[in-house]
Amino acid sequence: MLIGAVEAGGTKFVCGIGNESGEILERVSFPTEHPVKTLAQVKEYFKNKQVEAIGIGSFGPINIDRSSAHYGYVTTTPKPGWANYPFLPELAKVLDVPFGWDTDVNAAALGEATWGAARGLSSCLYYTIGTGVGVGVYSEGKLVHGLVHPEGGHILTRRHLEDTYSGKCPYHGDCLEGMAAGPAIEDRWKIKASELPTDHKAWEFEAFYIGQAVASAILLLSPQKIILGGGVMHQMHLFPLIREQVKNNLKGYVSAAEVTDNIESYIVPPGLGDNAGLSGSIALGLQAYQNA
Amino acid sequence: MLIGAVEAGGTKFVCGIGNESGEILERVSFPTEHPVKTLAQVKEYFKNKQVEAIGIGSFGPINIDRSSAHYGYVTTTPKPGWANYPFLPELAKVLDVPFGWDTDVNAAALGEATWGAARGLSSCLYYTIGTGVGVGVYSEGKLVHGLVHPEGGHILTRRHLEDTYSGKCPYHGDCLEGMAAGPAIEDRWKIKASELPTDHKAWEFEAFYIGQAVASAILLLSPQKIILGGGVMHQMHLFPLIREQVKNNLKGYVSAAEVTDNIESYIVPPGLGDNAGLSGSIALGLQAYQNA
Repeated sequence: MLIGAVEAGGTKFVCGIGNESGEILERVSFPTEHPVKTLAQVKEYFKNKQVEAIGIGSFGPINIDRSSAHYGYVTTTPKPGWANYPFLPELAKVLDVPFGWDTDVNAAALGEATWGAARGLSSCLYYTIGTGVGVGVYSEGKLVHGLVHPEGGHILTRRHLEDTYSGKCPYHGDCLEGMAAGPAIEDRWKIKASELPTDHKAWEFEAFYIGQAVASAILLLSPQKIILGGGVMHQMHLFPLIREQVKNNLKGYVSAAEVTDNIESYIVPPGLGDNAGLSGSIALGLQAYQNA
Repeated sequence: MLIGAVEAGGTKFVCGIGNESGEILERVSFPTEHPVKTLAQVKEYFKNKQVEAIGIGSFGPINIDRSSAHYGYVTTTPKPGWANYPFLPELAKVLDVPFGWDTDVNAAALGEATWGAARGLSSCLYYTIGTGVGVGVYSEGKLVHGLVHPEGGHILTRRHLEDTYSGKCPYHGDCLEGMAAGPAIEDRWKIKASELPTDHKAWEFEAFYIGQAVASAILLLSPQKIILGGGVMHQMHLFPLIREQVKNNLKGYVSAAEVTDNIESYIVPPGLGDNAGLSGSIALGLQAYQNA
């Protein structure tokens, strides 16, 4: 069975085809431009592909409330042309298949729970730490939506005592994203994150903020796996630093061996690597097929 | 149909009988002492009660992992006699009915979602702010368990700039519970919370900490209702202060009318009042009956 997938990022779109085992059979990628142009490329790609369903993991915020007249819309993004744009309805006009529709990070969380690092578990959190910070939440075997959808990249964290940086989030200044996303690192140190040496102070700060956010999420939700992805997390030396911060913050309060003894296999990189988003979109498509 | 309920608190136990509409038909209460003595009273109470199931909402931490050999145990509590005590197995020896078993706050969240302030919704958070701080999590129509169970009362919050109090949590010092639970208020101001005038600085601090925790929870989980219960929240003047803090923290980022326009009906006291815990235990019992 062929399932279509759209990983709709703010910078680029990836369209692909996969199967029910999560294998990615083919993919194309193009930059995110005005929605009319970009969605024309998506429609063109899937025109003769014979997919049984299409899953879309989209940048946000998006409307995922099935009872809403604006279900499938991108909502308040500053991205030119995309605010209040009927992303899903436009595709559904010409592609007559069931659609899965969720945030990019929820898609990645589902992908990891289906075929990746959280396979077989009923809960996980998927963080992407890159140009922004996002969190996908999978709990008790379901993706979490609620009122809107999780936006855990913007929680407030305590400031590192040596950190005088004001923060880069246009809404909150020094929230998690404002302090720990790639642009904040670059703005604070005036050098790209990817060019900072591994012993730079920047990584201590980074682990401090991410470790706090992860510790709070463990306390609030008790997930069975924490997956940290995104461009910044390509810096693999961050993982041990973050795990140490999490332990420092929890101080033994959560008495589960996963946290106290085996944190190396509890806070992990994506099992699907950089395919988490596209594979997750396949998983969303598969769910839509099964529900249809 | 008669459903038994046990609201097992660290200070007192409440046992009761309710029906499938959530009506509480009778109840008794006794202090929490050594488990052998206290559970004997529970067994005695239910001996000839003809209930179809019993729901227990317990103080924690507890083991709620059905696949564990210690399912139904209280785990690491400092309460004399209760650490690693087989609470549920002891009752199940003599009471031959299906049992529902969860944390006191999860029970209250389920009660509120079934018959209270979150009735008809698929998600809510139930905070109890009293001698400790606990959070029950109901999401996508299910209580959240995960690795252990939610312990969101211990998340780290930023310190109020004028607050020099070191915090009362034996694990984390100045976590949410360490700064905002009843004993922290009393220890900080050397006067019982219930005796502080409504214009006392204490309430500004209190709203500051709770408002931060609630804002972070909204971002991470996007719940459809936030319910604040427990002894400290009997101070109704706290509600507008907390709502204001939540708005200040979110800064319009979560664009849902529930938060931006109608926060008065979004952050609310328990619809079931002080019966949330006992009613929630009835709801747990009802679930156990339906699953059996």
